[in-house]
Amino acid sequence: MGWLVDETGLEKNAANHVALTPLSHLKRAADVHAGRTALVWKSTRRSYAEYLDRTTRLASALARRGVAPGDVVATLLPNIPQQAEAHFGVPACGAIINTINTRLDADTVGYIFGHAGAKIVLVDTALLPLAEAAIKKMEGSAPQIIEVCDREAGFTPGRHYLEYEDLLAEGDPEFDWVLPEDEWESLAINYTSGTTGRPKGVVYHHRGAYLATMANVIAWRMQLFPKVLTIVPLFHCNAWVQPWLVPMMGGTLVCCRDVTAKAIYDAIADEGVTHFGGAPIVLNTIINAKDADRRAFDHVVEVFTAGAPPPAATLAAIEPLGFNVTQVYGLTETYGPATECLWQPEWDDKTGEDRAAFKARTGVPMAMLEAAEVHDTHGVPVPRDSAHLGEIAMRGNMVMKGYYKNPQATAEAFKGGWFRSGDIALQHPDGYIKITDRAKDIIISGGENVSSVEVEGALMHHPAVSLCAVVAKPDAKWGEVPCAFVELKSGAEVTEEELIKFCRARLAGFATPKAVVFCELPKTSTGKIQKFELRAVAKLMAQQQGVTA
Amino acid sequence: MGWLVDETGLEKNAANHVALTPLSHLKRAADVHAGRTALVWKSTRRSYAEYLDRTTRLASALARRGVAPGDVVATLLPNIPQQAEAHFGVPACGAIINTINTRLDADTVGYIFGHAGAKIVLVDTALLPLAEAAIKKMEGSAPQIIEVCDREAGFTPGRHYLEYEDLLAEGDPEFDWVLPEDEWESLAINYTSGTTGRPKGVVYHHRGAYLATMANVIAWRMQLFPKVLTIVPLFHCNAWVQPWLVPMMGGTLVCCRDVTAKAIYDAIADEGVTHFGGAPIVLNTIINAKDADRRAFDHVVEVFTAGAPPPAATLAAIEPLGFNVTQVYGLTETYGPATECLWQPEWDDKTGEDRAAFKARTGVPMAMLEAAEVHDTHGVPVPRDSAHLGEIAMRGNMVMKGYYKNPQATAEAFKGGWFRSGDIALQHPDGYIKITDRAKDIIISGGENVSSVEVEGALMHHPAVSLCAVVAKPDAKWGEVPCAFVELKSGAEVTEEELIKFCRARLAGFATPKAVVFCELPKTSTGKIQKFELRAVAKLMAQQQGVTA
Repeated sequence: MGWLVDETGLEKNAANHVALTPLSHLKRAADVHAGRTALVWKSTRRSYAEYLDRTTRLASALARRGVAPGDVVATLLPNIPQQAEAHFGVPACGAIINTINTRLDADTVGYIFGHAGAKIVLVDTALLPLAEAAIKKMEGSAPQIIEVCDREAGFTPGRHYLEYEDLLAEGDPEFDWVLPEDEWESLAINYTSGTTGRPKGVVYHHRGAYLATMANVIAWRMQLFPKVLTIVPLFHCNAWVQPWLVPMMGGTLVCCRDVTAKAIYDAIADEGVTHFGGAPIVLNTIINAKDADRRAFDHVVEVFTAGAPPPAATLAAIEPLGFNVTQVYGLTETYGPATECLWQPEWDDKTGEDRAAFKARTGVPMAMLEAAEVHDTHGVPVPRDSAHLGEIAMRGNMVMKGYYKNPQATAEAFKGGWFRSGDIALQHPDGYIKITDRAKDIIISGGENVSSVEVEGALMHHPAVSLCAVVAKPDAKWGEVPCAFVELKSGAEVTEEELIKFCRARLAGFATPKAVVFCELPKTSTGKIQKFELRAVAKLMAQQQGVTA
Repeated sequence: MGWLVDETGLEKNAANHVALTPLSHLKRAADVHAGRTALVWKSTRRSYAEYLDRTTRLASALARRGVAPGDVVATLLPNIPQQAEAHFGVPACGAIINTINTRLDADTVGYIFGHAGAKIVLVDTALLPLAEAAIKKMEGSAPQIIEVCDREAGFTPGRHYLEYEDLLAEGDPEFDWVLPEDEWESLAINYTSGTTGRPKGVVYHHRGAYLATMANVIAWRMQLFPKVLTIVPLFHCNAWVQPWLVPMMGGTLVCCRDVTAKAIYDAIADEGVTHFGGAPIVLNTIINAKDADRRAFDHVVEVFTAGAPPPAATLAAIEPLGFNVTQVYGLTETYGPATECLWQPEWDDKTGEDRAAFKARTGVPMAMLEAAEVHDTHGVPVPRDSAHLGEIAMRGNMVMKGYYKNPQATAEAFKGGWFRSGDIALQHPDGYIKITDRAKDIIISGGENVSSVEVEGALMHHPAVSLCAVVAKPDAKWGEVPCAFVELKSGAEVTEEELIKFCRARLAGFATPKAVVFCELPKTSTGKIQKFELRAVAKLMAQQQGVTA
């Protein structure tokens, strides 16, 4: 411990210590980058001076309406400027922001309202029915609804609720922000999109969000003045801390209410977007864009992708279009991305499958994560031999405070002094981690572990396949067998038998799908395929064949 | 204060909280960038794996020799790899590193040995006589000398002291680093190069050094794998935290024992150096390089310069050579640079004097400094009118803990909750600060404030002038008058009268130098001109003219 013999007078004071908080980034940007464009949404363009003015008004108005430090303010909003503003305006009055997934059902939203105890909820005009239904179903006192009317998307405000712009008008632009005195104070609650049971409320602190902004800048090779397109929903781990990161860099957050190939291409060509994050499905959207939607641009767009490793075929198709794809990995519990597939310059000349294999690595801890390891069931790191499997465990300042009102789940998640991700991986000799499967995605067939990711990778090579997902189907003989669900490219045709044969040429017998279902895949709002729904279908198929799980 | 209603289970624990320390950067780099080159010095090339091995051995060997956590280990070393290693090896055993300016006199070095209470000092072979003389003059118990023999510079070890490589050989490469439990623990002591009185020991903490690495990365527009040349001495604010920053970015620290034009050009051309920092005099060294020393390169080198604003003529000469110059400002008390002249893209088309005027701004707070303002004598910010003068005041996490064993000076420096720099500046309407003078450099002539920087800027436009410094000379009539000391370019000639006339055409009468002395300017080891020596000369000149100050 580095305490000098005499530390008299060397204590913290107002001059040399400030609680870390991402709020500092906007305060500084409003001064240093006052006239620079902070937010873009269609014809709406807000400078950093305006951004500060509006978020200060929001904080003031919330405080006047009774929001006290420590209270929760929720949002049900798409990726529009008001959602970004809430990321500063809510904590600037000392409150905790709870951005709620807009694709959830009313029952779950009601549960979240009640569990977080939101006093106020900011609701997009289109989502008012959801909020109202949720309030009807919830227990406890309901949040007050503020309507956020996205005029750029053609909405006009109803007359039922106070509208966001009127709320801002109530606010004092000279209001003094309530900054954290302790950087461990809570900043945000994000409910995990649990596929079973009630979602858990992941609590973020100011310190972690601040440090995560720095980690992402380094990993994303970001320099001053980035233009970041909001593809990852702001309600999903606060879009991987992007709204807090962009002001630190004097950049522009370009909003995107609906993710379409046209919207992405237009944002790149018209707004000069340099960075965005998204699930691999977003990459497919870009690759499969109609010619009319494609636009020319002459810079390289840095893309973070997460949720699943980008298949080789996807990488091969998207890189020549001007996108550099880096896989990142994380969970709601780690402020989004916490590991990065840090690309080593020595790999530059790799091509095709070989290149894709490197790009598909889960990677190494980001600079502000202390450690990411693969642990066996005893919490001991597995050998770095590209073979032994274990659970990804992480620790450091980018790990959540815990689950709100759930100390038992928190203790479980942090057992042994590491955050246990539940995801299964191996570690290569150079330290790079490679997820073999998200914990619940492993298929055990005849005692053999089948990586659904590997089977999906094989399927994606077939020219007719646009998208696929592989889950376990209960089987009388093997316990489980891989069952594939496939979306075909428009106009393409292939039979179940052909696809199985195609896979068999590339995979071990036990890993080859025993059934293929052609259908549109169910997806979450973040573009993740809802495997739990497919598992239910596979189970039903098995039952109809007389097999019960 | 953002504490939720129920914070049960949301406390800090080993999984979600780690004390911030730059030591984490090397631990991660040794894993993530194991084979990448960390350090270069002539034919010496060390990978990150070797860097970790050697610093671990150093920490272990120091601990075995009785260095306990909280003890001080000093260095008297040039910019060689061993000095960088000490930046990790010393704190890795819990000790505090005290890099001592190698150009100091023995008396001052002895004072520092005694004041800091160093147990061990690592000394370059060439500096052994200085260390020995310092020990003779010091009070208290003397540090044990370890000789650091720079074989790359042609030295061979004497037989008098334990040599550094033998010390490392004693160390255990499996030694567990002593990491800070509290990020406020002390990391380094840097003695200010006080021009009068005894130097003060500025104490850094782990938190501040960690955050300063990030601030510099953003300001320096640095992406992964930078190659940083050590021009700023590692004993000068730990080279602006560069040894701690480079591993975070997986970069290479290229050592430079003696700063010459040839060494700089060779490092850029042969090692691909991308970044370095240095005083404006280093820019002049590059500009005035002999043709034989110049090398071709095809990238832009990002240069941080500090100590004095780069004169227009210097900028005009160096930018076409492939260097982008950014002025930064800071003090030992702020881990080196704390403000940056953040270049706005809108200024790109500015040229000549106009461009130089913008480049000469002191700038805005770096991203991890909370605030930098210009305060009047009551601690109130001066109007942002490019006219009112005040003192630069800063606060935030990049400000020192305080002065070692000097609580009175610490309290004075932090009065009012701000660190008071002593430097005089104005603030432009856009918030950019502009130093008019380091506090002690102002000349008051007939009641008018004369900025010595402004007079020097005028002189630098004369084609014969290579370098100059302007100080106050006591004057019977005006109180003080500007007196210029000038170095001419090799072969150039100009008279005192010609230079005065040249200045008069550009400056107010009271600002025009009344005397010009041609001589070689005295400089500190960091390339700063020693104005206090020139002031002594000017005072003597005045005395000889019958004027006493």
